[in-house]
Amino acid sequence: MEIISGETLQVFFLGTSGALPTISRNLPCILLKWGSHDLIFDCGEGSQRQMMKARAGFSPEVIYISHWHADHFLGVVGLLQTMSFNGREQPLTIVGPDCVHDMVIDITRLCRTRLGFPVESVKVKSGDILIYDGYSIRVFDADHGIPGVGYIFEENMRPGRFNREKAIELGIRPGPLFGKLQRGSDVTITVDGEERIISPEMVMGPLRSGRKVIYTGDTRPVLSELGDIGEDADLLIHDATFDHQEVERAKEFMHATASEAGMVAETLKAHRLALFHFSTRYTSTETHVTDAKTHFSGEIFAPNDLDIIDIPFRNE
Amino acid sequence: MEIISGETLQVFFLGTSGALPTISRNLPCILLKWGSHDLIFDCGEGSQRQMMKARAGFSPEVIYISHWHADHFLGVVGLLQTMSFNGREQPLTIVGPDCVHDMVIDITRLCRTRLGFPVESVKVKSGDILIYDGYSIRVFDADHGIPGVGYIFEENMRPGRFNREKAIELGIRPGPLFGKLQRGSDVTITVDGEERIISPEMVMGPLRSGRKVIYTGDTRPVLSELGDIGEDADLLIHDATFDHQEVERAKEFMHATASEAGMVAETLKAHRLALFHFSTRYTSTETHVTDAKTHFSGEIFAPNDLDIIDIPFRNE
Repeated sequence: MEIISGETLQVFFLGTSGALPTISRNLPCILLKWGSHDLIFDCGEGSQRQMMKARAGFSPEVIYISHWHADHFLGVVGLLQTMSFNGREQPLTIVGPDCVHDMVIDITRLCRTRLGFPVESVKVKSGDILIYDGYSIRVFDADHGIPGVGYIFEENMRPGRFNREKAIELGIRPGPLFGKLQRGSDVTITVDGEERIISPEMVMGPLRSGRKVIYTGDTRPVLSELGDIGEDADLLIHDATFDHQEVERAKEFMHATASEAGMVAETLKAHRLALFHFSTRYTSTETHVTDAKTHFSGEIFAPNDLDIIDIPFRNE
Repeated sequence: MEIISGETLQVFFLGTSGALPTISRNLPCILLKWGSHDLIFDCGEGSQRQMMKARAGFSPEVIYISHWHADHFLGVVGLLQTMSFNGREQPLTIVGPDCVHDMVIDITRLCRTRLGFPVESVKVKSGDILIYDGYSIRVFDADHGIPGVGYIFEENMRPGRFNREKAIELGIRPGPLFGKLQRGSDVTITVDGEERIISPEMVMGPLRSGRKVIYTGDTRPVLSELGDIGEDADLLIHDATFDHQEVERAKEFMHATASEAGMVAETLKAHRLALFHFSTRYTSTETHVTDAKTHFSGEIFAPNDLDIIDIPFRNE
């Protein structure tokens, strides 16, 4: 696996409501910003305006749709059209399960104008891994009554710590050669008239693991799917449509409760948990957080629209 | 024409931007509230949430679409779905020009759930008049490069002034009989042992004209269309995408300038003018208002999202 240099990683919660919007919450949309790369996960009606309000830029490379309920994809239509108006020429990929090809045809037809850029659809199923430059996206099955998936963003390994003292001891002067070693290249120097090759392994600590963000989409708990691949996430964004009191309703409508989200987070040893997709029946998410806390000992968020969670580098 | 009793008439500007939303303006949507009747004119993406924010109720009887550019109809999809979630069973009619039948099929298919109420599509063209209980909607051709129409809301005549003194003079005691006469029925009384029939005409002034609101949709000025039917409107809501400086651009993209909107309002003797559908290039509408003022001497509005204009009764 190619190692990568450090990129900032931020998760923008652009819309946090469930099937229906409210005055304070728009429909589901998450923007994952990795360096200069923008990935969108689900895109409910009105998401383009949430992107404007977040001042988070406006040029996603890929839109990942978890399932084809309208609250999760309707915003794609207006977003495509606005990007076209704004002169976008860069191709856009829409990734999704099941009928993604037909849906993308319907969506682009509804735009009613010729888009200025190509839109490609990619159908994914559980087990697929999409490899990009510096990260990958892994697909797992959700359990929502209709075909649906969740996505795992996994950053590649990043370089180990640079041992500055060791490098100087080996005869390298602070300067451009430090950077060359840090970027993974050998360096040749002359010490006492003798040529010496210094390789990165001699001055760099072991590779450090990349960061991991899981987005479940709408689903019942799916530990069977996530057991092997979902451990040790920096952030688990989990369906928490209902609080624990409504667990029967959660089962009926194939959603999860905040308690269940907490259990999943604890079992998977997630570092942090973001509860997501709140039903309009709740005006406060306090109970959700309390419910999740009874099962999960890590940090818990119940994001409001436009909240941002920064995912720091791992410092192992 | 049946006369009607007084209903409040309000125009809610739910979205006031042009083709693209901004942070402060959502896509075009106008709610005309006549008594307990809600009529929607155009319904851009995110309109359902604007309806929530306006706290204006949530049960339109008819949605009138001016033309099939996505910024004018995309919001219908989410609105239908939310109304269905909320248990609506009352049928909904979507009125529009040209390919309305196909569009309504596409829209309902995109909902991806079975709606709990029937959706009917009605195709209209210039000259059509849709008659309702208490008002009518007249259709005229817009000039926007693709098939498009504008709509005129025309309230039926309302009763003349009730002459209370005359009624008492004729022998009627203040009470329920006053109301009966006001509602248009004869009243029989006995005066000095003699039966006497009092008809409404004897105590009511001449019928007073109803109110009129015109919505042009996206269009170049269309005085040729509006000359005969558009005079004397209480409110003219006119495309004013551009200010006068951009008149060439307005011609190119088949929109109107604020100056042109003012000219149309003046020629049609409108009482008030609301400029509408502002291009995202403007952060202020001051120039629009100034431009319109050079041609129109009546009251001019440049509504922001969620602004309401009350249309008072005519007191002739």
